[in-house]
Amino acid sequence: MPQTLHLVKIGGNVIDSPQALDAFLNHFAQLQGPKVLVHGGGKIATRLAEKLGLEVKMLNGRRITDRETLDVTVMVYGGLVNKNIVAALQAKGCTALGLAGADLDAVYATRRPVKDGIDYGLVGDVQAVNAEALQRLLVAGFAPVMAPLSHDRQGQLLNTNADTIASETAVALAAFYDVRLLFCFEKKGVLAKPDDDESVIGQLTPQSYAHYKAEGVVSGGMLPKLDNAFNALARGVREVVILQAEALPHYGQPHFTGTRIIPE
Amino acid sequence: MPQTLHLVKIGGNVIDSPQALDAFLNHFAQLQGPKVLVHGGGKIATRLAEKLGLEVKMLNGRRITDRETLDVTVMVYGGLVNKNIVAALQAKGCTALGLAGADLDAVYATRRPVKDGIDYGLVGDVQAVNAEALQRLLVAGFAPVMAPLSHDRQGQLLNTNADTIASETAVALAAFYDVRLLFCFEKKGVLAKPDDDESVIGQLTPQSYAHYKAEGVVSGGMLPKLDNAFNALARGVREVVILQAEALPHYGQPHFTGTRIIPE
Repeated sequence: MPQTLHLVKIGGNVIDSPQALDAFLNHFAQLQGPKVLVHGGGKIATRLAEKLGLEVKMLNGRRITDRETLDVTVMVYGGLVNKNIVAALQAKGCTALGLAGADLDAVYATRRPVKDGIDYGLVGDVQAVNAEALQRLLVAGFAPVMAPLSHDRQGQLLNTNADTIASETAVALAAFYDVRLLFCFEKKGVLAKPDDDESVIGQLTPQSYAHYKAEGVVSGGMLPKLDNAFNALARGVREVVILQAEALPHYGQPHFTGTRIIPE
Repeated sequence: MPQTLHLVKIGGNVIDSPQALDAFLNHFAQLQGPKVLVHGGGKIATRLAEKLGLEVKMLNGRRITDRETLDVTVMVYGGLVNKNIVAALQAKGCTALGLAGADLDAVYATRRPVKDGIDYGLVGDVQAVNAEALQRLLVAGFAPVMAPLSHDRQGQLLNTNADTIASETAVALAAFYDVRLLFCFEKKGVLAKPDDDESVIGQLTPQSYAHYKAEGVVSGGMLPKLDNAFNALARGVREVVILQAEALPHYGQPHFTGTRIIPE
């Protein structure tokens, strides 16, 4: 019976609120056993890019990453956000270690090919997560904190979606652990009525997901997150849950609220 | 007989030149045995601060670090410079891992007290380097790449001089290894005549250092570097050498040029 590992992804809206982030990091620090944190970037990168006069280009919810924009991403995600989270976790008694794709070859990716005339720029499609190196860190009692970055093994850093890093890392670590992948964000779960914060869908199967998708109940940024979730379950991750950051300490308790993703 | 460890510090002028940095990283990647790289920041942080309209205040060659300036430092040193060095080293076959003070509690510091009315701001005086954690990484075959940052164990990152991080890390690792501390920069060593690049002083003892200091031959930013060097030797580091980055592969060879610091 492999050991349980919590792989927690924290979204940008929580990172943008110092109070919400601090409360979340308290919960993360208190999780028992091996654990990994994957963080998004939030609006800080966009604000820095604006201050520097860079034009922010988005396409299907993803940033188009030219060289200057990549530098901003590396500075904000790999530097400012990652290191402040690590410093806060150390203060809370959690031996954290920040990783930004290239570190220990944690996340190897290839640059996304141009398709239908769309060039995303310096964006990486994940090819391999170095589960062996992560396991060495976890066995030593360290908690990896992963920024949404990857590298191409030829010296180039690449921008990569945080949900994808979280699910690919969960899949890779499933070779060693009983992995629980927890997507934490500002809502209580996937909502049946977007305007009603209490309308949490308790369970999503492929069938009910297809239904909600067809009805337009689930849309936008939630779609790649859920695609990632089903994909992770199909590839060995034990459980995937979408939950509010504040609900993390209640995960596994009787009165827990959140959306559990069910494989079949 | 403890194993030899190379602790290499690379200065800002080399970091500012992509070609010089790449050549240096080739040399570092080829060093055999356990090794640690400590890097400075170069002018990138100053340029970013200027672009953001922050006033850069220097005092005795050290930056006065307010909150906005610290953020720039964390972004540039802990993010951009550190992660690009790590990505380059991975491409050269070296399993590198970036650390920025808070990571694994690598460099614990306290905020420098206000003295003679001078407040350096968010600057850390090193109190402890986590040699045990570094050793775990080294034993695993990983090469730590350390940014000039520290943390106060209460969630605050602090700006810290790279030479100091290098010498304090060398001293801490001297408990486990035969440590060779190599300060690499753009000159061939400490020069007897500042305008003559060939006037390298081959050896410096405390006596000859006092002599050169009194004559004004050695001055400016070289003084804290040499103070750090003598201090490291007095605290267990086996050898300290100041050398040109290009000379790194010749270290230990017969025709090596550089300034060797001699304890007595």
